[in-house]
Amino acid sequence: MIDDRQAHAFVPYPDAPVPHAATGTLAGLSFAAKDLFDVAGYPTGGGNPIVLALSGIKARTAPTVQRLLDAGARFVGKTVTDELAFSMNGQNAHFGAPVNGAAPDRISGGSSSGSASAVSNGLCDVALGTDTGGSVRAPASHCGLYGLRPTHGRVSLQGALDLSPSLDTCGWFTRDAATFARVADVLLGADALPAPTRLLWPTDLWSQLAPSAEASTHAAAERVQAVLGRATPVNVVLDSFDAMYWHFRYIQGREAWETDGPLIERYAPPLGPGVAERFAFSRGVTNAQVAEATAFRERFTAHLDALLGRDGVLLLPTMPDIAPLRAEPESGLEDYRNRAIRLLCAAGLARTPQISLPLAGRDGAPMGLSLLGPRGSDRALVAMAERLAAAGVGR
Amino acid sequence: MIDDRQAHAFVPYPDAPVPHAATGTLAGLSFAAKDLFDVAGYPTGGGNPIVLALSGIKARTAPTVQRLLDAGARFVGKTVTDELAFSMNGQNAHFGAPVNGAAPDRISGGSSSGSASAVSNGLCDVALGTDTGGSVRAPASHCGLYGLRPTHGRVSLQGALDLSPSLDTCGWFTRDAATFARVADVLLGADALPAPTRLLWPTDLWSQLAPSAEASTHAAAERVQAVLGRATPVNVVLDSFDAMYWHFRYIQGREAWETDGPLIERYAPPLGPGVAERFAFSRGVTNAQVAEATAFRERFTAHLDALLGRDGVLLLPTMPDIAPLRAEPESGLEDYRNRAIRLLCAAGLARTPQISLPLAGRDGAPMGLSLLGPRGSDRALVAMAERLAAAGVGR
Repeated sequence: MIDDRQAHAFVPYPDAPVPHAATGTLAGLSFAAKDLFDVAGYPTGGGNPIVLALSGIKARTAPTVQRLLDAGARFVGKTVTDELAFSMNGQNAHFGAPVNGAAPDRISGGSSSGSASAVSNGLCDVALGTDTGGSVRAPASHCGLYGLRPTHGRVSLQGALDLSPSLDTCGWFTRDAATFARVADVLLGADALPAPTRLLWPTDLWSQLAPSAEASTHAAAERVQAVLGRATPVNVVLDSFDAMYWHFRYIQGREAWETDGPLIERYAPPLGPGVAERFAFSRGVTNAQVAEATAFRERFTAHLDALLGRDGVLLLPTMPDIAPLRAEPESGLEDYRNRAIRLLCAAGLARTPQISLPLAGRDGAPMGLSLLGPRGSDRALVAMAERLAAAGVGR
Repeated sequence: MIDDRQAHAFVPYPDAPVPHAATGTLAGLSFAAKDLFDVAGYPTGGGNPIVLALSGIKARTAPTVQRLLDAGARFVGKTVTDELAFSMNGQNAHFGAPVNGAAPDRISGGSSSGSASAVSNGLCDVALGTDTGGSVRAPASHCGLYGLRPTHGRVSLQGALDLSPSLDTCGWFTRDAATFARVADVLLGADALPAPTRLLWPTDLWSQLAPSAEASTHAAAERVQAVLGRATPVNVVLDSFDAMYWHFRYIQGREAWETDGPLIERYAPPLGPGVAERFAFSRGVTNAQVAEATAFRERFTAHLDALLGRDGVLLLPTMPDIAPLRAEPESGLEDYRNRAIRLLCAAGLARTPQISLPLAGRDGAPMGLSLLGPRGSDRALVAMAERLAAAGVGR
C-alpha cells in the first residue's frame, strides 16, 4: 500500500501479493481498483462494513483487473467507494471522504471516489471505477480527470459487486489522454464501427448548466469545436427532464433493491445519510413504475439512436457545475445530485458510451466536458480525447 | 455462524474452523467472543470499519479464548462491539444495534453489546466481553445476565484490542449462576484469599438510583441480604461524585487516546455519534489532569481498600435504572451514560472485581444488583452468586 495519508483514497487492507506481467502495453503504470472488484488476497468491502465482514478473503481476481495485470500494470490497492456504490457524494459514513486532488476543499464526487482521489492526487496512474448513474463521470469532472463510462457490457464487471446491472458499467480514470488510450487498447480493443465524426449540440442538456459555469464551459466547448468540428443543435430530452429523471431512478432503484435488499433486510446494516433514503425509495418502487420506465427507456433509446445515427457525437457538460464544497450539508448534496442525474442519465438509459474530459472549470476547480457517442464507439471517443490533447486542448 | 437474524448480535464473518477439546469443564457449552479478541481464521474488527480493514485474518487465538476452547467450549462467532469499545449504548453506527433479549425495545448496553445480546437471546451459553468503564456490567444489568468485571489483570487480555489498559478487564456473560461458575473455574481458578463475608451498603452509591427503580431494587437487595447477611452502611465517594467521575474520565480518556489516537489521526475514520465526541475529549486531556487523576486514584483505592478490608463486599445497584429505550436520542443516552459512570467507576479506579446479578428490575425490564469485593475475591463473588441461586434468589 502506498502512503495516502492526505488523500484517504485507499481502504487500508494489508498488502497481499498481486503479480503482474513484467512487460506489456501497460508496463510501468500503477493502478488501483474500486473496492467493488475482487482481487485475490483481499476482501471486497463495497463501502459497507457488513459487506466487508461477509466478504472474507477473495480467491479470484476480477477479469478486468486481471487484464490490467496481464498487460503489465502494477496493482497498488483498493480504493474507497461510496457505500454500496449508491451515492454521488464521495463521502462514505464508514470509510471516510477521499480527497479531491484538484480541489481539496470540494467533494471528489462518487461513487468511484477513492479511485478519482488516488489518480487526482498522483497516488497511481490509473484507477478502475464503476458507473451506474454517473459514478465515473461525476468524479472525473470534479477531480479534473479523464473518465469513461463505456458502452453497457463492453468492459466486464464479472467479479465485481453489482448495483443495478442493466445500468452498471466498468470505467477508469487517468490524468492524461495518452495514458487513457493505453488502457483503452487493453480494455476496449478496437471498435467494430467506423469512428463517428458529426458533432451534436444537445441544446436542452446545456440548459442544465449552472449560470456561474456557463461562460467557462462554453469557452471550453468552443476549443473542442475548433478541433473536432462545429456542433449541430439537437434536443435529447423526450417528454421532459422529470420523466427522464424518474424513469431512470425507477429502473436504478428496482435493480438496486434486487441486488442489496436481501442484505439490508437480513442484516439491517446502518447506512450512511442519503444512502439509507435511496434504498428506502428503491424498496418502494412499484411494478407499474418499472414497466412504465422500461417502456420509456426503449422509446428514449430509439430517440437517442436516431439522433446519433452511426456517426453522431453529443458534446455536453458532464455535470451542472464544479464540485460542491465538502462542507455542503447532505440536503444540498442531494439537490445537486438530483440536478446532475438529469445530465447523466441519458447514457445510462440508452447504454451509450460517454467520456468526460477535464477541459472546463471555474474559480480554480475543474469541470468535465463530455463526448457521448453511439453504442460501440468507445474507442473512437478516446481517440477524440487524444486528438484534442494533441491539439493542445486538455492535457 | 448460528442464525441471529433477529438479534444482530454477531459480526457476520465467514465461518472458519476453530477446534475445541472434545471433553473438559466446559464441554457442551457454546460461546462467542466480542470482536476485540483475536480468533485465528477471523479478522478483529473492534467495531470500526478501518480497524476491520487493517486487521487481515488473524493467525493466533487470544489466550483467554483458547482457554475456553481447551476446556471444551465450542466457539460460535464474534460479537458486535460498540465502536472501539468506547461507548455504553449498544448502538454501533457501522455494524448495527444488537437486540436486548430481555427487553427488545430497549438498548442492550455496551460496549460488549453483541455478547450480551447473543447470550440473552439464547444464541450461545457464554460470551466474552471486556469492561473498561462498565462494558460488561452495564449490558449484564440491561439484558438480565450474570456478568463479571474481574480484578484488573486477573483474566488475560493478550490478543485483544486495548481501550484504556489500566482500566481494561476481560469478563463474560451467562444466563445462570451455575454456568457462570463453570467458566469461573476455567478463567479464574481459585482465589488466593479467604472469601469475604461482611456485606456493606454504600449509602451514597444507592442515592444514584432513579426514583422509579428504588422500590424494586431495594426489594431485591432485601432478598440478597436474607441469604448473605445484613449490610452495614458505608460511604464510598471521596470528595464528590463529580471528582470521581472526572478523574475516571481523564484516566480513561488519556489511555484511550494513547491507544487509538494514532489510528484516528492517520486514517480520519468517521466515528459514530458520541464516540467521536469522547475521542475529542480524550485528545484534549492534559498532563496536569492525568497527574491529578492518578493521585486521586491512589487516594480512592486506599479509601476503598480500607472500607472493604479483606472480608467486605459492597452490595449496590449496577446501573441507575433499567435500559433506556432504543428510540432514546443520543443526547439522552449520553446523559444516562454519565450518570451510570458515577456508579460504575469505583471498581475501575480501584481495580476491584464486581459481579452483576440479574436480581432486580421494573416494568418487565431487568436490572442488575452488584457485589464488589477486594482485589482477588473474584471467585468468592461468583460463589455468592451460586449461593443466592441455590437459595432461589436469581436463576
